[in-house]
Amino acid sequence: MKNIKLVIEYDGANYHGWQTQPNLSTVQETIETCLGNITREKISIKGSGRTDSGVHAIGQVANFRTQTHLTVNQLTKALNSTLPRDISVSSVEEMPEDFHAQYSCKSKVYKYIILNREYPSALLRNTSWFIPRKLKTRKMKEASGFLTGEHDFAVFAKSDPDIKNTVRKVLNTELKKTGKSMIEFEIEANGFLKRMVRMITGTLVEVGKGKISPEEFKQILLKGEKTRHVVSAPPQGLFLKEVKYQ
Amino acid sequence: MKNIKLVIEYDGANYHGWQTQPNLSTVQETIETCLGNITREKISIKGSGRTDSGVHAIGQVANFRTQTHLTVNQLTKALNSTLPRDISVSSVEEMPEDFHAQYSCKSKVYKYIILNREYPSALLRNTSWFIPRKLKTRKMKEASGFLTGEHDFAVFAKSDPDIKNTVRKVLNTELKKTGKSMIEFEIEANGFLKRMVRMITGTLVEVGKGKISPEEFKQILLKGEKTRHVVSAPPQGLFLKEVKYQ
Repeated sequence: MKNIKLVIEYDGANYHGWQTQPNLSTVQETIETCLGNITREKISIKGSGRTDSGVHAIGQVANFRTQTHLTVNQLTKALNSTLPRDISVSSVEEMPEDFHAQYSCKSKVYKYIILNREYPSALLRNTSWFIPRKLKTRKMKEASGFLTGEHDFAVFAKSDPDIKNTVRKVLNTELKKTGKSMIEFEIEANGFLKRMVRMITGTLVEVGKGKISPEEFKQILLKGEKTRHVVSAPPQGLFLKEVKYQ
Repeated sequence: MKNIKLVIEYDGANYHGWQTQPNLSTVQETIETCLGNITREKISIKGSGRTDSGVHAIGQVANFRTQTHLTVNQLTKALNSTLPRDISVSSVEEMPEDFHAQYSCKSKVYKYIILNREYPSALLRNTSWFIPRKLKTRKMKEASGFLTGEHDFAVFAKSDPDIKNTVRKVLNTELKKTGKSMIEFEIEANGFLKRMVRMITGTLVEVGKGKISPEEFKQILLKGEKTRHVVSAPPQGLFLKEVKYQ
């Protein structure tokens, strides 16, 4: 049996997220169906983690076992020519037996894109969060600095009975203006809770609007008290940028 | 009567081009319908020129006459909240009586985006031309340099019985690699023939593939002889970037 690793890009707009669900179109199921047709085996792929409905990926990672004789180049071509055009595969690689897209993962990087100008953008409507009110980026940057390190992120997560430990380690954050009107927020952590990046981003935007101060953001994080300023950013601005191993 | 100028962004994927056609959804007709609802007048808008089916715009310009009492700010907000999300308006301005989006235009800038890497991109599928074969950008740049100046561009145009004069003046071109795998081609001219940017770009790609030399590209332009290497690039990589006045 070969253990194959895929690096996957997708436009999440037309999918009910990554993970297979009954009667709903998902990225995982779409890829599994394609791989089944290509290899004539029943293929089950394991992603590095879920992404929500509407969320995009530039570098989602998944792995699967197969007995196919196809080379990795042949698999890449077969996948990219049979997948719907809103899913593409940038890399196919054979891995050691023990590689697991989820458990071998050391960290993940998410990017969130905000379009901050007075008028919306037709071309960026599905890949950014449009906020017409001028945001104070300096304050947002200051607040985002408090995220680094090990914290209980339960306050920035949708509650999930399956998750006992809500402590995660944020390795890095970056918040910057790009172009005339874009704000990009990147966050790398050893793991993410459900909705975590969207809730952090939504709350950073409350800071940017001047509704809470960077210090109040810090207190929400440290005390873990959900206030009405802990809000979720919409899915279409979010990208799973990279999954890191080793 | 007020004379109002609009600057318009659109994602051309779902429209049969700019210009109103019977029984087909077009950008012009969509904006006219919205403006009609907003002003309760019968509005007819005049664009700076047509764009083909599937072509995008960042800064298309149009103007129209109205007796509305709405301010330009109110019109901007009303348009952006009632237009479909794949059309947006970045500027609404009252102009002198004699301003005309087409006839007052001094030049236009088009941008064409090529994705040049081995595997396609889910996220850029509708906003770039995916070419897996490695292109020689230096040769393409050399060939594109010959375009500047006044030339008869009939060879790079779909024939059009309404157009007698096919001489246009190219003011500027730029061809550059951006990021790891994008090639951006920009061209500014005092006017463009039907399909002109797509046919120039398609032929530049023939140069990039090594099928013709930059010198042969120059000869096609100067002699005006259509060869099998004069090919049209697909619409989804093309953007009307800016329309300049005065």
